[in-house]
Amino acid sequence: MAPSQPALLVAQSGGPTPVMNASLAGVVEQASRSGISRVLGARFGIQGVLQGDLIHLEDQPTSIWSAIRHTPSAALGSCRRKLSAEDRRSALEVLIELNVRYFLYIGGNDSADTALALDQTAKQVGYDLKVISIPKTIDNDLPGTDHCPGYGSAARFIAQCTQDAGLDTEAMRLSDPIKLIEVMGRDAGWLVAAATLGKLDEGHAPHLICVPERHLDVDAFLGAIESAYRRFGFVVAVVAETIRDLAGMPLGSANEVLAADAFGHPNLGGAAATLTALIGRELGVKARFDKPGTIQRMSMALASAVDLDEAYAAGCQAVIYALEGQSGCMVGFTRPEGSPYRCEMKPVDLRLVANQQKILPPTFLESGPFSIGAAFQAYALPLIGAPINPYPRLL
Amino acid sequence: MAPSQPALLVAQSGGPTPVMNASLAGVVEQASRSGISRVLGARFGIQGVLQGDLIHLEDQPTSIWSAIRHTPSAALGSCRRKLSAEDRRSALEVLIELNVRYFLYIGGNDSADTALALDQTAKQVGYDLKVISIPKTIDNDLPGTDHCPGYGSAARFIAQCTQDAGLDTEAMRLSDPIKLIEVMGRDAGWLVAAATLGKLDEGHAPHLICVPERHLDVDAFLGAIESAYRRFGFVVAVVAETIRDLAGMPLGSANEVLAADAFGHPNLGGAAATLTALIGRELGVKARFDKPGTIQRMSMALASAVDLDEAYAAGCQAVIYALEGQSGCMVGFTRPEGSPYRCEMKPVDLRLVANQQKILPPTFLESGPFSIGAAFQAYALPLIGAPINPYPRLL
Repeated sequence: MAPSQPALLVAQSGGPTPVMNASLAGVVEQASRSGISRVLGARFGIQGVLQGDLIHLEDQPTSIWSAIRHTPSAALGSCRRKLSAEDRRSALEVLIELNVRYFLYIGGNDSADTALALDQTAKQVGYDLKVISIPKTIDNDLPGTDHCPGYGSAARFIAQCTQDAGLDTEAMRLSDPIKLIEVMGRDAGWLVAAATLGKLDEGHAPHLICVPERHLDVDAFLGAIESAYRRFGFVVAVVAETIRDLAGMPLGSANEVLAADAFGHPNLGGAAATLTALIGRELGVKARFDKPGTIQRMSMALASAVDLDEAYAAGCQAVIYALEGQSGCMVGFTRPEGSPYRCEMKPVDLRLVANQQKILPPTFLESGPFSIGAAFQAYALPLIGAPINPYPRLL
Repeated sequence: MAPSQPALLVAQSGGPTPVMNASLAGVVEQASRSGISRVLGARFGIQGVLQGDLIHLEDQPTSIWSAIRHTPSAALGSCRRKLSAEDRRSALEVLIELNVRYFLYIGGNDSADTALALDQTAKQVGYDLKVISIPKTIDNDLPGTDHCPGYGSAARFIAQCTQDAGLDTEAMRLSDPIKLIEVMGRDAGWLVAAATLGKLDEGHAPHLICVPERHLDVDAFLGAIESAYRRFGFVVAVVAETIRDLAGMPLGSANEVLAADAFGHPNLGGAAATLTALIGRELGVKARFDKPGTIQRMSMALASAVDLDEAYAAGCQAVIYALEGQSGCMVGFTRPEGSPYRCEMKPVDLRLVANQQKILPPTFLESGPFSIGAAFQAYALPLIGAPINPYPRLL
C-alpha cells in the first residue's frame, strides 16, 4: 500500500556546478513552506530512483540547508545515465510505490531528456505526476532560457583566472611568454567567451579566444599567436577543450589516450597540450598551459552572488510550478529589457530543451576569428555578480 | 656624477606568487617611513638593472601601495636569469652610477644566488652596497627559514581545490571516479603535501599523495588507486608535476614535447596526463586530471591572510636590516615554540640559501608511500590562515 502522504522527490544530474545545491536547498525549503511533508532525495540522480537509494530530506536538521546552499557540487550525488524504455517503467514503478507526485530534476540537456521521459511515461499510464526540470549547467547551453544557473559562477571563475594568468604571464614574459588556458563547454563557447569578462583593452588577457563554434584554422591560430606576441610581448589564449580543426577532427581528446605508439607509450593530448606543443615547435617560443578542469566548476570563493540567488529561486519556483499543476516543463529565465539587470522565471516546455544545445549566436562571433563581440559582455557581465576588479599596475 | 641622495633599488625575480607584491609594498612603505627619498624599481628583475629599465617608485601615488599589496604576481615584472661574471660587473656599474646603496631582491633560490653575487662583487671593489634578499616561493624550499612567503597562499589554494575536486569526484563517482591533480613544487613536495590540509578522514580527498622526494613505483601507485577505489568508490590523487619513476625518469615533461612519433605527432605528457592514461589502460576505469598551473600561484581570493601579512613584514624588515648595515643576508622566519602560532624574523646568511633546496624532512614522509605524516599538518596549518571549512554532507 502506498504511503498516504504525497511525496516530492528531488535529484541532481550531470556535471556539478557551484550552485546546484542552492537549487536543492530552494526545493527543500520551498517544499517545507508549501506544506509538503515528505521530501525524498535520490542519491546519484535517476540511478538512486532505479535502485531505491533514497534519503528522507525532511529528516535533515533544518539548519543544514543554509550550509548546503553555499556548498559546491551535488550534495545528493549525480550521474550521467540515459534512460532505456525499461528504465522508464522501472523508475515510474518506484515513484508510484512511494506515492511520489512531484518529481524535480536538477540538471542540463541530458537530464531534461530524463525528466521528459518520466513525464511522458506517467501520462501514458495515467499516473498523476508533476515533473519539473531545474536548469543546471556551467555550459549555459540550454534552449528556452536566457541563461542557466551554474554558468554565472563558472564564468566568474574563468574571467578571474584569465586575468590572474595574464598578470602571471606578463610578469614572466622573458621566459614563459605564451599561456594557454583550456576551458570546458562541450559544443558551446559560452564559458570560453567568459574569459573576456575582465578584459580592459586589447593588450590585456585574453588575446585569443577559441570557441568550439568555430573550427580552428591551426595555421591562422599560430599566426595570430605570433602577431600578438610581437605586439604585446606576451599572449594568453583561451581554448575550448573540445576545439576541432578545419577538418572537424578534435585537436585533443582531453584526458584520454588517443592511440599508443609502437612502444606502447600513449599519445596523450588535450587541446591545450596539443596547441602548446605546436607553438613550441612551430614558433620556437615557450608556451605553457593551465587546465583548471574540475576546479572551474567548484569554486565557492569565486561564485557569482547573482547565480547563487537565481539557482535558489529556480529550486523554489519548481516546487511552485509543480503545486500549480504544471508538468513536463523546465524553469526558464527571461530578462526584461532595460537596466539594471533583473530576471524573471517562466515555464519552458521540456520538449524544447531535451537533448538540444544553444550555442553562441552569430552576433557574438562576428568580431573576428579569435575574439568575441562586445554584445557578449553586455549579455554576460550581469550574470557574474560583482565585476572583476581591475588590478593596479606599475608596468 | 652620481646623484647625491643614496637610493634603494628593489626588484622581483622567479615565479610569481600571490604575495610577492605585498613584500614590494612593504619595501616601498618602510623606505618612505625610514626617510629614503629615492626608491627605484627594476623592471623584470635583474634584467631591468642590466638594461637600465627602472621606475621611480617614490613618484607613484602613495595610495597605490595598499592596492599593490593585495595584487598577485610581480608588479615590477620578473625574470629567470643567472648572472654571468660580466653581468655582475655590469649590474654593479649601473648601481654605482645611480648611487644605489641598498639592493633588495624578492625571490627564491636562484634569486638568492643573484643577490649573493652582487654582494660579493660590491665587496670586491669596495663599493658600500647593502644587499638583502626577501624570500619568495610557493615551493617553500628555501633553507634557513621556517617557511617562505608565497607558500601559505598557494598551499591554501591547493588545499581548497583538493576538497573541491574531492566533492566533485565523489558526486560523479558513477562515471568519473578517479581524479588526479597536478601540482607545482620542483624537487620539493611542500605544495603537494598541502593538498592534505583540508582532509578530515581517510575516506576524504586526497587519498594518495605523490611527492617528488619519493620516486614513484608506478605499479604500487596503480595498486593503491585500485584499492582506494574499491574501498571508497572514488579516488583523488595529488601528484607533483616533477614526479619521477623508480628509474629516476620524469613521468611527464610538463607542457613540453618529449618526442615526436613517426608521423610527426608529438607525444605529449605531463605527469598527471601520463598517469591518467595509465589508469585508464591498466585499471579500465575512467580517470581525469586537473592541472591548475599558473592559477595555483595567483589566486587572491584564496590567499592566506597570514602569508600576506608576513610577506609585507618581510619587505619592511629587509629595509630595516639594510639600514642597520647588514648585507649578504635573507630575511628568514623562525617560529617560537608553543601555540598560538607566531613567527619572528632573523637575518640568514645568503651563502646558506643560494642554489640550495630544502625538501620535505623524513618525519613527514614516514607515514607510507602515498601519504604525509600528521606532523606536516601541525607545521603547515598555521601558514594558510583561516582553516579550510569542512563541507556539510548529505551522502
